[in-house]
Amino acid sequence: MAEDNVIYVGNKGVMSYVLAVVTQFNQGTEEVEVKARGKSISRAVDVAEIVKNKFLDEVNIEEISTKTEELENDDGSESKVSAITIRMTAPQ
Amino acid sequence: MAEDNVIYVGNKGVMSYVLAVVTQFNQGTEEVEVKARGKSISRAVDVAEIVKNKFLDEVNIEEISTKTEELENDDGSESKVSAITIRMTAPQ
Repeated sequence: MAEDNVIYVGNKGVMSYVLAVVTQFNQGTEEVEVKARGKSISRAVDVAEIVKNKFLDEVNIEEISTKTEELENDDGSESKVSAITIRMTAPQ
Repeated sequence: MAEDNVIYVGNKGVMSYVLAVVTQFNQGTEEVEVKARGKSISRAVDVAEIVKNKFLDEVNIEEISTKTEELENDDGSESKVSAITIRMTAPQ
């Protein structure tokens, strides 16, 4: 998947990510992955639901997967954080 | 699905929900649904990942689905909130 097709959800307002996803689909992309870690996971779900319900009826949430990632802290120790990938597809 | 097999994740510490899920599986339940709304969605993902990775290797995250729910506010107006259901299964 091209880099552009992955939207990383962080701390910005939910609508900036919604617009990023909608823009991708409007440019003809068939598949967009919405990814987030930790507390941003809730926002990623909001993004996918708002895209589907308010903007692009025809887009589907194809698959949602989760995993645990290890992050290295500044002091060299490791923390584990949950991550989500929401795969959205548009019928062609 | 019996009521007991649904764990609603809210504002308590993540481990109380992890233990609730682990207890269900240890009692022989084949399937547990972990549900959450709004900001608790991130915690629900943590619960599922911790159950799978730290406690019950054999348990799988079978399917994750999201939806938008409408809540009635105290003043009668409606708010929309994202919700997640994480279906976990144990091989019998």
